[in-house]
Amino acid sequence: MIESAKAFAPASVANVAVGFDILGHAVQSLGDCVTARRSPQPGVRIQSIAGVTTDLPLDAANNTAGRAVLALWELNRAEGGVELHIEKGIPMSSGLGGSAASAVAAVVAANELLACPADKLTLLRCAMLGEQAASGSMHLDNIAPSLFGGLVLTVGIDNPRIKQIPVPRSIRCVFVHPHLRVATSDARALLRKTVSLSDFVWQSANLAGFICGCYTNDLEMIRDSLFDVVIEPQRQQLIPGFTVARASALANGALGCSISGAGPTVFAWCDARHAQQVRSAMVEAFGQHGLPCDDWVTSIEAKGARLSVQAASKVRARE
Amino acid sequence: MIESAKAFAPASVANVAVGFDILGHAVQSLGDCVTARRSPQPGVRIQSIAGVTTDLPLDAANNTAGRAVLALWELNRAEGGVELHIEKGIPMSSGLGGSAASAVAAVVAANELLACPADKLTLLRCAMLGEQAASGSMHLDNIAPSLFGGLVLTVGIDNPRIKQIPVPRSIRCVFVHPHLRVATSDARALLRKTVSLSDFVWQSANLAGFICGCYTNDLEMIRDSLFDVVIEPQRQQLIPGFTVARASALANGALGCSISGAGPTVFAWCDARHAQQVRSAMVEAFGQHGLPCDDWVTSIEAKGARLSVQAASKVRARE
Repeated sequence: MIESAKAFAPASVANVAVGFDILGHAVQSLGDCVTARRSPQPGVRIQSIAGVTTDLPLDAANNTAGRAVLALWELNRAEGGVELHIEKGIPMSSGLGGSAASAVAAVVAANELLACPADKLTLLRCAMLGEQAASGSMHLDNIAPSLFGGLVLTVGIDNPRIKQIPVPRSIRCVFVHPHLRVATSDARALLRKTVSLSDFVWQSANLAGFICGCYTNDLEMIRDSLFDVVIEPQRQQLIPGFTVARASALANGALGCSISGAGPTVFAWCDARHAQQVRSAMVEAFGQHGLPCDDWVTSIEAKGARLSVQAASKVRARE
Repeated sequence: MIESAKAFAPASVANVAVGFDILGHAVQSLGDCVTARRSPQPGVRIQSIAGVTTDLPLDAANNTAGRAVLALWELNRAEGGVELHIEKGIPMSSGLGGSAASAVAAVVAANELLACPADKLTLLRCAMLGEQAASGSMHLDNIAPSLFGGLVLTVGIDNPRIKQIPVPRSIRCVFVHPHLRVATSDARALLRKTVSLSDFVWQSANLAGFICGCYTNDLEMIRDSLFDVVIEPQRQQLIPGFTVARASALANGALGCSISGAGPTVFAWCDARHAQQVRSAMVEAFGQHGLPCDDWVTSIEAKGARLSVQAASKVRARE
């Protein structure tokens, strides 16, 4: 019987410009780790929170990781309890799916303690219930890529279907986090409740073109499609310097550039050979607005949440 | 020098439930033929209109086929004139892309008379200008599948990009034309000018799920995605019996069922083994509403407009 397991779940870029609430992709450069440890005391407890963000609820029912594991525990009528140790690698309110990653890492780790581990779709649902504690709404566009890896489409909420969409191998994602906070709830509250029919058609064409471009390795199709005519125009006001950063990214060869999730992180897709100049251009643009940044370049590997080596070897031994 | 050429262009199902104004697929069971004949008299003339629909303008500038060839002629500064003989196989105002098919067949045939034949994207643009004469608006969701064949995505109007999306081989399209007319302009006029944000997200998920389902041969994903929450609810009032026909199709195994273009033709996608029972169920449903139907079953082959055998052999001889 395994006493403890540790899992890493990657950060993620939700929406990906054209798939509001349905598309997201993992980024491997940062993520959250959660250790789950068996406890004789029933229930789920958050034992510690460390890392780049510590200002999070210690009450399990109000913590995304705690809530997700509570859901997993209830579903499996599991006996005994769990202690969670959370190590945050993803900054708070950065638009990089931090709450989703904590929920995903928590269920992946806690799942190892179960006599009958749950399947991935069950973990997805439990993590979604966890993230709901943070965002107030149910969506999967961060959860699914963090759990499965790569570029992921989610269709449906009650009975979700997941599709990993292949990403052309030469594509890199540059993502730049200017040092300001945008609360997901604020970014959601400012959205208009309707979309004009013409923007609906335009964005549909972009979404479809982007997906077809990915399946057929057609970078020019991706370039022509990877822009957001619905959400970004409403949210860009929350991010000083966004329009300049976006223009600089495109001028330096990016295929597309938009807001990661609710922001303020801004991401750009580009061919690998343009990645460094796109990165510099974006950082410089935010610098001109007095905003220091953290910045990364990542490939979009289809590698989702995983157990840390020690735990993984235990699992292999058990199997 | 070729004196005349004849081309066939297939009918098409536009929108395909989830891609309003951007998706369409060809159906091979019916279509229009146009013969283009060189004439010493400059300009374009409609010499005859025969077939299932003859009540169409003979004035070339107001006829979709005539207008399309005029555009091709002007673009190529072609000398001399063209006579067009149109044979309509597609019923008027049926929602099967009849005006698009005439425009496509006309430019494909007339193109053979040019010293320097135009490429397919040029033919697409000219046919679009032709169809504009009929519908009043510019869109490609009938034109592109009729010209290219198969299931086709069009992104953009001014500089359109075309993507043929693979369709799982076992899929058949059942389409049923109840005998009533719906004018495209009426069907368009009744649409609300906005879409709710939640329906926008839902339909985006359906569109993306449908495309991914096609690329990955995933019939269950197609089943979960192939329904229209935006346009169909508004247009179904134009087609008595539609809701019963749709329910019958789904109850008999259809993956999805919706309105073809602006209607009144209703189409259903299904696995080949369910095609005949879906067809019977739909015809019976319309029969209960006193509407006789024409009905077909077709595979969705990637076969677009083509020259008739005689003309094609001339072309091969010339090359």
